[in-house]
Amino acid sequence: MAKTWKIEPTESLRATTDVSLRDIDTSATPGFDGDKKYGAQALAAGAEHLSELQEKLFADSRAAGGTKSVLLVLQAMDTAGKGGIVRHVVGAVDPQGIAHHAFKAPTEEELAHDFLWRIRNELPGVGMIGVFDRSHYEDVLVARVRSLVSADTIEKRYDQIVEFERELEAAGTTVIKVMLHISYDEQKARLAERLERPDKFWKYNPSDIDERNLWSDYQEAYETAIRRTSTETAPWFVVPADRKWYARVAVQRLVINALEGLDLDWPPADFDVATEKTRLAAS
Amino acid sequence: MAKTWKIEPTESLRATTDVSLRDIDTSATPGFDGDKKYGAQALAAGAEHLSELQEKLFADSRAAGGTKSVLLVLQAMDTAGKGGIVRHVVGAVDPQGIAHHAFKAPTEEELAHDFLWRIRNELPGVGMIGVFDRSHYEDVLVARVRSLVSADTIEKRYDQIVEFERELEAAGTTVIKVMLHISYDEQKARLAERLERPDKFWKYNPSDIDERNLWSDYQEAYETAIRRTSTETAPWFVVPADRKWYARVAVQRLVINALEGLDLDWPPADFDVATEKTRLAAS
Repeated sequence: MAKTWKIEPTESLRATTDVSLRDIDTSATPGFDGDKKYGAQALAAGAEHLSELQEKLFADSRAAGGTKSVLLVLQAMDTAGKGGIVRHVVGAVDPQGIAHHAFKAPTEEELAHDFLWRIRNELPGVGMIGVFDRSHYEDVLVARVRSLVSADTIEKRYDQIVEFERELEAAGTTVIKVMLHISYDEQKARLAERLERPDKFWKYNPSDIDERNLWSDYQEAYETAIRRTSTETAPWFVVPADRKWYARVAVQRLVINALEGLDLDWPPADFDVATEKTRLAAS
Repeated sequence: MAKTWKIEPTESLRATTDVSLRDIDTSATPGFDGDKKYGAQALAAGAEHLSELQEKLFADSRAAGGTKSVLLVLQAMDTAGKGGIVRHVVGAVDPQGIAHHAFKAPTEEELAHDFLWRIRNELPGVGMIGVFDRSHYEDVLVARVRSLVSADTIEKRYDQIVEFERELEAAGTTVIKVMLHISYDEQKARLAERLERPDKFWKYNPSDIDERNLWSDYQEAYETAIRRTSTETAPWFVVPADRKWYARVAVQRLVINALEGLDLDWPPADFDVATEKTRLAAS
């Protein structure tokens, strides 16, 4: 693969527990040695590599005692490009190995349970790459900004989330948490495009402006959530996302790095190869 | 798109209620005007077209009263290429619009319910393309060959399936049923390859030979199932699959045709565009 990363995103984009979102340049391309053109090349090369790694993860799950899975959590303000990540990064991988779920506003039934109940129901199985488009973090983001629950409850949820993710890690799930970070102006331009193009109308909702008008509250909620839940084993990555090409290649790299960290290899045969060859020949 | 189909697969591969599987040449390429090279080109061109159609299906589901979805049912003997269809045909589409499910041997809980219970639980939502790797047809295939239930029960299931699929159609789901049809010899070659390559061992299971040894029973069970459940609205397509490239481009075309038949278009704005532009400008 092309040597396009001077500093790996696992290092350069990793959020510290005192991260300041306003101090991050949303139009920057940290660590990447190249422009949009190189970004597209790196994305294509990475797609093949990612696809191979995914197949090994899947194969690993078939071996006795396989427990490994990956969970990519995508959080962002509207228009920041979650959909593009799914289409262009996750889309390069065999659909059989992907468990994608988009979380909407909780239903009555979901609200009747603990906030992690619906999340647990959608966790990736062994061998799978789970992708959450929104997640349990909504319960400390919109829930905080809109005061859907008490401040006390929000406080407790940060700790519950840390505990929950520790549990996932212990069970074999590598958690990658990504915030796609765009600027207020970039969001305006993207919403304007949706209002110009009839093939984009369906992506627009008047409530997008209501949320936009709470921008600084959301930024504060994100910052607090990231600070409170960034851990050694389940770190947050704040990905500058004004440049879509950068966000895609960076998230792809984060997933590749996570999979490489699992030291995957093709599982050995759990049958006698010679015996099976004989059986097949006789058939 | 390239003019590669002389006769559409919707016509040439559609199974009649007196279909004879042994009379179908599994290495043929019916209706396709070209060889493997053209097949690859058609697949690439079709991928873009399919991707656009899928986005329109998804968009349509956001409009008031949207009910449309598609369900691709894949059935085949081992090694026939279900996985390749998912990877190379379905994989070209945005993962957000795909609901893929691989059905395994039923669990205790599933067996405690009607055979369609677990199927209903995995039906695609509105706007989605569902993909079933195996399906309710296993309940008249392996169930018949292995005598897992009585002959009477199997008989009833054919009618229950026809009724169930009629229900799906009425609810807005276009059902496409595909049998990937390979020869006994081709299966042998593909199993042999899995036994030669350590990166393929994980795909091999000694029970594959047990099933292979019941080949003619399975062919008969497939033939009966197809005859009994091919209907006007939920027809079976028997896709010759000894040539992987042909099977892929043919199934892709079947899905494209189904989506084109839905007359999809971008839904109109359900908000006042001018008002929203003003709100955005003021934000």
